Amino acid sequence: MRRIGEEELEDIAVGAGILGTGGGGDPYIGKLLAREAIRAYGPVTVVDIGEVADDALVIPTAVMGAPTVMIEKLPSGEEIVVAFERLQTYLGRQATHTMSIEIGGLNSVMPFILAARKQLPVVDADLMGRAFPELQMCIPSLFGIGTSPMGIADEKGNASVIHAVDNLWSERLARSLTVDMGCAALISLYPMVGAQLKSCTIAGSLARAEELGRLVRTTRAAHGDVIGAVLDRVGGRRLFSGKVGDVERRTVKGFARAEVRVDGLGDDTGSTLLLSSQNEHLVARVDGQVLASVPDLIIVLDSETGQPVTTEELRYGYRITVLGAPCDQRWRSEAGLAVTGPRYFGYDFDFVPVEERVS
Amino acid sequence: MRRIGEEELEDIAVGAGILGTGGGGDPYIGKLLAREAIRAYGPVTVVDIGEVADDALVIPTAVMGAPTVMIEKLPSGEEIVVAFERLQTYLGRQATHTMSIEIGGLNSVMPFILAARKQLPVVDADLMGRAFPELQMCIPSLFGIGTSPMGIADEKGNASVIHAVDNLWSERLARSLTVDMGCAALISLYPMVGAQLKSCTIAGSLARAEELGRLVRTTRAAHGDVIGAVLDRVGGRRLFSGKVGDVERRTVKGFARAEVRVDGLGDDTGSTLLLSSQNEHLVARVDGQVLASVPDLIIVLDSETGQPVTTEELRYGYRITVLGAPCDQRWRSEAGLAVTGPRYFGYDFDFVPVEERVS
Repeated sequence: MRRIGEEELEDIAVGAGILGTGGGGDPYIGKLLAREAIRAYGPVTVVDIGEVADDALVIPTAVMGAPTVMIEKLPSGEEIVVAFERLQTYLGRQATHTMSIEIGGLNSVMPFILAARKQLPVVDADLMGRAFPELQMCIPSLFGIGTSPMGIADEKGNASVIHAVDNLWSERLARSLTVDMGCAALISLYPMVGAQLKSCTIAGSLARAEELGRLVRTTRAAHGDVIGAVLDRVGGRRLFSGKVGDVERRTVKGFARAEVRVDGLGDDTGSTLLLSSQNEHLVARVDGQVLASVPDLIIVLDSETGQPVTTEELRYGYRITVLGAPCDQRWRSEAGLAVTGPRYFGYDFDFVPVEERVS
Repeated sequence: MRRIGEEELEDIAVGAGILGTGGGGDPYIGKLLAREAIRAYGPVTVVDIGEVADDALVIPTAVMGAPTVMIEKLPSGEEIVVAFERLQTYLGRQATHTMSIEIGGLNSVMPFILAARKQLPVVDADLMGRAFPELQMCIPSLFGIGTSPMGIADEKGNASVIHAVDNLWSERLARSLTVDMGCAALISLYPMVGAQLKSCTIAGSLARAEELGRLVRTTRAAHGDVIGAVLDRVGGRRLFSGKVGDVERRTVKGFARAEVRVDGLGDDTGSTLLLSSQNEHLVARVDGQVLASVPDLIIVLDSETGQPVTTEELRYGYRITVLGAPCDQRWRSEAGLAVTGPRYFGYDFDFVPVEERVS
């Protein structure tokens, strides 16, 4: 058990920006919101999975929608309480803990806002080990655990409790409500008992993000090679360095979709990288050849500072370095790839681990 | 208190077909579904408003969606129980009664299916005194009573409990879910305590529909003037008689919309009636002049048999007689017209009672 202060939040935000593969909402905004909540309502306690009783009721919380919208329509913090309490009403039971569904951007620290307001501990874990665009793309799905009953609420006070037959239906119904709610909504989902956490979550995600953020901060302070340090820590591959040449961005059915063209610099001069994203980066292709794809992580860093760049921040002229990193092993199983592999997203190729694609 | 048998159902279906102004789903289908439920689960008891205790919990039930879809995707009966029970779970309380939200078509008898399955009495009342296309178009809206918390479910078992800030938001969120659920869903809404029924409902609707249906049946058996008898009973005006010349029908955002051209016959030879509908008939114009509009009732009858014709049944060659009839007085108030008047539906004219428009 440990307390989260402002410096830890700062590091978590940077680390989650890296692990979030461009999505999950702007981590800078998340950090500010979480910091304000902690200042207003008091500090937040983080506990390890081993500290959670088997019969505890853990309700993860997140923001759902298009990151392009989230940076303009900020959550007030109140709506996350509404989503959470409507779900509790339906369950007829009070939660004992909350946690992140994804260790990406804004969503890595959204639970801190609820935790501060409701004085609940946050479990140091997440459900993806990165960020993904759709609700069923969580490890509990692989274990037959329902996304629903889930609560969803907007800043106006509208709420709904969805109770669907499977996790694809939860995603579909919640996405429609999110679009109605203005393309960004707060959600409480995957209610689990403590005993389910060990097999169905990725333990220690907050600590991992915090370490990664601290690594960036300290390496930069020492004028070291930030990108090299990150690459080493995530066990990844360097895919490409270049300058953003073109960004084609659309908000479609509640998702921020983008196709980004990056013109090579340095060793990559003369080559072109195409990045395709749906909230998060899905596929990285260089000169038509796939170098990395979901569920592996495609990490975009500012070439100068080594800071993570979100999908919605990318614009003409940005100099970026793109890394690929292995995802949690469970995503590489047959069941995992059915939920998060390239074919699910409509691509006509099979998943190949990034460490095999790029040596 | 009285029992509803098959003959009563038959009459209610015809009467509700007349009062439903073309909408609410096919009353013939409703009758068959209700009859089967009663055969399988036992008879249903109907009680008057005066028989309901002040602290009773009454939850009306209905089908929501496009009537054009409802005739192809019939409710199994199970989904209405799901919508109802999910709402009960959220409320943390068991309902004592159910009732109709509209005395129109299928929805006039949908509560009988739930009532038979759950052995609950049905209150003889409805929330519109006709049928309307949107959820907020119910008398309780005029008294500040919420559509939500409401339950919604589909035949696959998906469900949601919506808890919105106002009735327009309930309609909007529920409509999106209905579209996802296949353009037809079952709903439980406007939970009320018995004490609210007197001011917020239209009492005796089932008895009124039944009387009207019986009138059609007995007049027809006696080879009498069915249309004249209906006209007399609803206190209406004869608007037009003719042959359907053209039907332009679309399913848009979960609604069945239609523009129907009727070429005059008899006294109306040479004139043209244009009927505009959104699930229900909204406006009747003859040679460009409005003869009747929402919230007044526009009733379409088969010219030969006097039987009501639903909007989705109308097709080329049908010989129909169109009547206008006054709506419940509460709809003619300023607050009522704001919710159901022609301007709400996008028409650029004020409501004028049908008895003033046509003398």
